[in-house]
Amino acid sequence: MEFNDITTKMAADHIQTALFFKNENIAYLSGFHPSSFSMVIFNEDPVLLASKMDLEEAKKISKIPVEEFNSFKDVKEILKKEGIKTLGIENTISLGICKQFKDDWKIVASDLLVPFRMIKSSEEIKKIQKAIKISEKSVKSLRLHGKEWEVAAQLNYNMRANGSQKEAFDTIVASGTRSSLPHAETSSNYISNPSVIDWGARWEGYCSDCTRTNVETEKQEEIRNIILEAKKVGIKSIAPGVKASEVDKAVRQVIVDYGYGDNYIHSTGHSIGLEVHEEPSLSAKNESKLEKNMIVTVEPGIYIEGHFGVRIEDMVLVKNKAKILTNLPGDFNFE
Amino acid sequence: MEFNDITTKMAADHIQTALFFKNENIAYLSGFHPSSFSMVIFNEDPVLLASKMDLEEAKKISKIPVEEFNSFKDVKEILKKEGIKTLGIENTISLGICKQFKDDWKIVASDLLVPFRMIKSSEEIKKIQKAIKISEKSVKSLRLHGKEWEVAAQLNYNMRANGSQKEAFDTIVASGTRSSLPHAETSSNYISNPSVIDWGARWEGYCSDCTRTNVETEKQEEIRNIILEAKKVGIKSIAPGVKASEVDKAVRQVIVDYGYGDNYIHSTGHSIGLEVHEEPSLSAKNESKLEKNMIVTVEPGIYIEGHFGVRIEDMVLVKNKAKILTNLPGDFNFE
Repeated sequence: MEFNDITTKMAADHIQTALFFKNENIAYLSGFHPSSFSMVIFNEDPVLLASKMDLEEAKKISKIPVEEFNSFKDVKEILKKEGIKTLGIENTISLGICKQFKDDWKIVASDLLVPFRMIKSSEEIKKIQKAIKISEKSVKSLRLHGKEWEVAAQLNYNMRANGSQKEAFDTIVASGTRSSLPHAETSSNYISNPSVIDWGARWEGYCSDCTRTNVETEKQEEIRNIILEAKKVGIKSIAPGVKASEVDKAVRQVIVDYGYGDNYIHSTGHSIGLEVHEEPSLSAKNESKLEKNMIVTVEPGIYIEGHFGVRIEDMVLVKNKAKILTNLPGDFNFE
Repeated sequence: MEFNDITTKMAADHIQTALFFKNENIAYLSGFHPSSFSMVIFNEDPVLLASKMDLEEAKKISKIPVEEFNSFKDVKEILKKEGIKTLGIENTISLGICKQFKDDWKIVASDLLVPFRMIKSSEEIKKIQKAIKISEKSVKSLRLHGKEWEVAAQLNYNMRANGSQKEAFDTIVASGTRSSLPHAETSSNYISNPSVIDWGARWEGYCSDCTRTNVETEKQEEIRNIILEAKKVGIKSIAPGVKASEVDKAVRQVIVDYGYGDNYIHSTGHSIGLEVHEEPSLSAKNESKLEKNMIVTVEPGIYIEGHFGVRIEDMVLVKNKAKILTNLPGDFNFE
């Protein structure tokens, strides 16, 4: 991404200046991850407005000039002085912030950065690969004993010791009957099988996201094999030009064919980068076409309420076909 | 809070039905903390719409009826069938979600729940006190050795072992010259003095938030004494009817008098509950009046760039005067 590409798109959308408030967008443009309220005023001369509290760090790290954020009143005066009439604002921004500007400017609410952020540069790909490497190294010494939360704490500790800034998201360790809850909070139950572990590291802001499930009984293994087959079919379906929904459809069909369609209660995957969940998602309704250098997860699961669940998740880079970035075997069992 | 109080306020604001998307608002109304997209349609017959993924847990926990969220299209049909013309929507909600409704309904964007959530019930106060108790027990066995992040991991582990669901926010351990960064990420530096530790536990969704700073040199102790004096003055200024800004002013004046006004680079505090940062904040610009059963933090700090920083933070319940909820002495030194 070059700033020129963004300003060109802004011109096409009749946006004179864009305001960015979302932390990941600010990080994408400036390299600085704010810890408190910040914004970027973006045009040919972008500027990051950071809170007094972040100022020292922001000035060290930001690739664009940094000034102190004082008040919306000051921001409005700057915009008026520059003769700006049309403001681009993120679709993700709150109504409360929008209210600050909507009376004095024509607002164009858009996902201006999404088309840029969804295509990863070689530098971004390297950062994501590094996050994956850390996360995989960190499970190899993981021991599945103690309580679910202790296993999660151990894994988080390993990731940090291996260089992760922090977890990419709250590590999921859901075992026994709790494995049927795709987003279970880790409990104080002693870990048992099957155990679904869904974890990710973060390197220079970029996330990894992977899931493996330990199985024990034949029935559990049978379900895991279905999941592995569905994942394989999904990954095989990935190529530039393919719709996101088609990947979901391919994966879902395998699970339906085995009679578990009603037990596949979430989408097949999501893009990933500075955020764990980015656009496009691989869901039944998403008609976006995959493009080269997108990075997506493929994560089929079967959840049998009251019994157990299995999910396996890999990360995939879209090239002429899918390149799997994760390296752990799908039937990896934790020790 | 009784649901009647909310519907009465809605009637006064000419809101027929309110939509809530923010997780903490959903938790406040239903008792269920969603792990993925959810919403509450609120009127005399409120309903929680949860994603398929959350459905099993939501049905177990929610105090209001639960149905599956399918699509915005379905939600719109329900609203139309009920003859709703005016919709209340949270100020915190994104433009993207608002767009779904703004063409077919009159939208009233408001902070409808804020006045209710800012006054804590006795049940909420108990939950917050339990979170405080966990967080304080957890530092008593904390040893300040190793790297900053290891100290943070140790503290997080202790909190979880003592019953916290998870940290209320990313634990801050900022030591040596890094203590001058109020929101420093924990680094891989070996811990040194002064060390600012800012941590909180979470009990049934409710947060605690406390900061203590270990000091070593006379200069550091001198600064900490100024902070302790400022904090004392701030807490003494708290009473129902006092403006939030007046507490900030009282605290700031002490620091200014000692010549460190430019080194106090953040607000004096914030309300706390289901979220770590709630309304009203104790900032120079906040003219809200304190009321009985608000819970706020008082957290003065002095940050000398390139040298060091000191911050001390207590939690306070507003009664006829301030009741300090935290129990650790202000000059508590970690071992």
